[in-house]
Amino acid sequence: MSTSDPTLDPALDPAVEAHLEATREARLASYLDLLRIPSISTLAEHAGDMRRAAEWIAAELTRIGFDHAEVSATPWHPIVYADWLHAAGAPTVLVYCHYDVQPVDPIELWETAPFEPFVRDGRVIGRGAADDKGQLHMHLRAAEALLATRGRLPLNLRIVFEGEEESTSVSMPGWLDANRGRLGADVVVISDTGFFEGNIPALTESLRGILYTQIDVSGPPADLHSGTYGGNVENPANALARIISELKDRDGVIRVPGFYDDVIPVDPAARARLAALPFDEAAYLERIGVPALAGEHGYTVLEREGARPTLDVNGIWGGFEGEGSKTIIPALAHAKVSMRLVARQDPLTLFEQFRDFVLRGAPPGVRVEVTRLGAGRPSATPVDQPVVRAATRALRATFGQEPVFKRNGGSIPVAEMFERQLGLPVVLLGFTNPDDNAHSPNESMVLANYEIGIRTICLLWDILGREGID
Amino acid sequence: MSTSDPTLDPALDPAVEAHLEATREARLASYLDLLRIPSISTLAEHAGDMRRAAEWIAAELTRIGFDHAEVSATPWHPIVYADWLHAAGAPTVLVYCHYDVQPVDPIELWETAPFEPFVRDGRVIGRGAADDKGQLHMHLRAAEALLATRGRLPLNLRIVFEGEEESTSVSMPGWLDANRGRLGADVVVISDTGFFEGNIPALTESLRGILYTQIDVSGPPADLHSGTYGGNVENPANALARIISELKDRDGVIRVPGFYDDVIPVDPAARARLAALPFDEAAYLERIGVPALAGEHGYTVLEREGARPTLDVNGIWGGFEGEGSKTIIPALAHAKVSMRLVARQDPLTLFEQFRDFVLRGAPPGVRVEVTRLGAGRPSATPVDQPVVRAATRALRATFGQEPVFKRNGGSIPVAEMFERQLGLPVVLLGFTNPDDNAHSPNESMVLANYEIGIRTICLLWDILGREGID
Repeated sequence: MSTSDPTLDPALDPAVEAHLEATREARLASYLDLLRIPSISTLAEHAGDMRRAAEWIAAELTRIGFDHAEVSATPWHPIVYADWLHAAGAPTVLVYCHYDVQPVDPIELWETAPFEPFVRDGRVIGRGAADDKGQLHMHLRAAEALLATRGRLPLNLRIVFEGEEESTSVSMPGWLDANRGRLGADVVVISDTGFFEGNIPALTESLRGILYTQIDVSGPPADLHSGTYGGNVENPANALARIISELKDRDGVIRVPGFYDDVIPVDPAARARLAALPFDEAAYLERIGVPALAGEHGYTVLEREGARPTLDVNGIWGGFEGEGSKTIIPALAHAKVSMRLVARQDPLTLFEQFRDFVLRGAPPGVRVEVTRLGAGRPSATPVDQPVVRAATRALRATFGQEPVFKRNGGSIPVAEMFERQLGLPVVLLGFTNPDDNAHSPNESMVLANYEIGIRTICLLWDILGREGID
Repeated sequence: MSTSDPTLDPALDPAVEAHLEATREARLASYLDLLRIPSISTLAEHAGDMRRAAEWIAAELTRIGFDHAEVSATPWHPIVYADWLHAAGAPTVLVYCHYDVQPVDPIELWETAPFEPFVRDGRVIGRGAADDKGQLHMHLRAAEALLATRGRLPLNLRIVFEGEEESTSVSMPGWLDANRGRLGADVVVISDTGFFEGNIPALTESLRGILYTQIDVSGPPADLHSGTYGGNVENPANALARIISELKDRDGVIRVPGFYDDVIPVDPAARARLAALPFDEAAYLERIGVPALAGEHGYTVLEREGARPTLDVNGIWGGFEGEGSKTIIPALAHAKVSMRLVARQDPLTLFEQFRDFVLRGAPPGVRVEVTRLGAGRPSATPVDQPVVRAATRALRATFGQEPVFKRNGGSIPVAEMFERQLGLPVVLLGFTNPDDNAHSPNESMVLANYEIGIRTICLLWDILGREGID
């Protein structure tokens, strides 16, 4: 039941604001401490750092006042769980963030060391500042502010902080099944998304899925002299280039048969919401720094990002990369190729279609292998949920601006897992600015977004605690 | 004038043979010493090793009895020059070899350290064992054997040992012009080629030219999140794959307009010589270790190698090469692409055509640069030269087998420079077995070819000294 006038924005509890104001410096220091742990999930050498980050967070949760804080084992990186369930009669929210980060390559394009974070021009700069340790830290500090001020939370919280989000959450389905008994909630709030262009507060109504693959092409057992053998031996790097070029046409349309079978067009209302967004294509182009945009004809930039699938090479390598010249036919060539998926596209089905297409097109002079490195389904969250309405009010009250709805081109596979495996509605509430360089060198978080966002979370918990969810 | 019966093979001077037999161990030790110097011309970090190798060779030339041994400066790596010009009335031969070697990547495929050579199963194993320090060393030892035995050579020799052959001899044209005054000769003998399949003694009648390029594709200034931007931003690695795939069709035909304009078909006699060679395609396929051969329809393997141009990617790289997954649109993608040229193809003209074709096909969302890293013209040496006839006799006498004529798919740009800039006829007399793994891991030289080849050279100098060249 909703008892408040939704046109009247509530204000943040002054006692909570006072606590937040008094603890600003310590909060920043703690934020930077968390960023200093190089928790790169995809690289085996950082397994110890992953564990260290999980333990750091679990200790914080206990210190703040959560119960049952635990570094919960999975087949790969641990998941941090905690709960606070003493608000009888109030809703239960499951909060999801992730403590793992992307690798740092190309390291030479970082202005400073990725894991030595610092503040400059109102931004926290460092790997994970935005995606997603900054947002995880906001949830820690929001709960701390409420608990420190009042000794209790206005609703029940369950915390699930993952360590494999940047590696397509491979352990998560099993962990969700095994922990189903302690994951009961009314809604999942995921903070791993961000604002709209121009730092306009936003809620995300859909996420693309992902299929991440590697293509390995092998020719001769060792590199060959390209003079002696050139013209008679299939070159694995040339073959790989051809395979990749045949995956997508010049207009960005993917040529894998069946790829678009489950791409259901977005409904007119959703398309209208996208069209209504204050999108400035010139500013977008300038921010990205490319000579021209590319992509499928017949769609806007925001539709291409949020409502259409795509395919990208994430890495390619083979043969001689040094200075000067080396005249060889390389023995091996490799590429990492990922697809972003929408609507009802299923990455496991698509992988079979993708692999078959690649293998069918491979020339007889090489051996080709295709491996699936990750998969996550696309997801969409209805915009008319009570929690979405409450989050809209909390954002408007704290940021002083009307929030918009956006469609996120990125993938958070757990969103769909929470929906499908646990039957929970999901709300995507994130606070980063689009120019945060997530996954890129010089990742940053606007410090004001971090600070105001903590207040948004406190206010949202208060609204939901007071008004309920249904 | 020729005074001998060409059907009667001369024999090696027994005194020279005795000397060679007595010095076998010391000769091998010296050979391995030379291989231990990592003289990789293309890598700046080895500039000191290049100089050390040149000085080692110049000191040997002096010790052996050559005059004017000099480490002669060029804008890049020095050229070793020496001469012995005391055989009045006898011909003058300019001997060319090179002391630089290919890089060693992929180092992990070497069974042993590339610059710690050793002998196993009748082979010297190590980078440069065959290409070309082994053959250079044969010329040092042949001249030493003659000078040590008789105090003189049967003809006049000029030595030109280069340090940039594996880097398309970029300093050579200038050096040849500047040193024209001391390069007068009747013929140039280049020892940088090898025998035919099955270790059949061979003389090489043509070399392919080369055009070596690098293609650099740049998109956004930094890697972008492939979720957020995938579908709107041209991916430099996808663009590069398309560019490469459009350079050559599935049958190996190069699609650069004008590319075949100067490809004059070989004459029927040359084609017949190729067809007469005892080529075993099954053995060739098995030795290379690929599932199937590739290449232009309508040509034999040996024609594709020696009489047709081709195009290969020698290296490609961009984006994430680590384990696991990283979801980025790479900022940069690069490829090294080289072409082998035949007949009258001119690499400088072709470079313009190649660059224009690549740039025309590049999508508007990326910037593309094409750089020329090296160029060498193709060359052909007539098979009816007196020196070729003499070399045939010397090979037959020492190896006990009739030599054949082969066309070499590799490139030795200096061959054409000697012909065009100095007006000198060139003879390609080399001694390596086709399974020598030149440019590949585990390069080797058959020790018997090295030993008998030294005797071939001694005998050839005796024949030319006695019979003259015209």
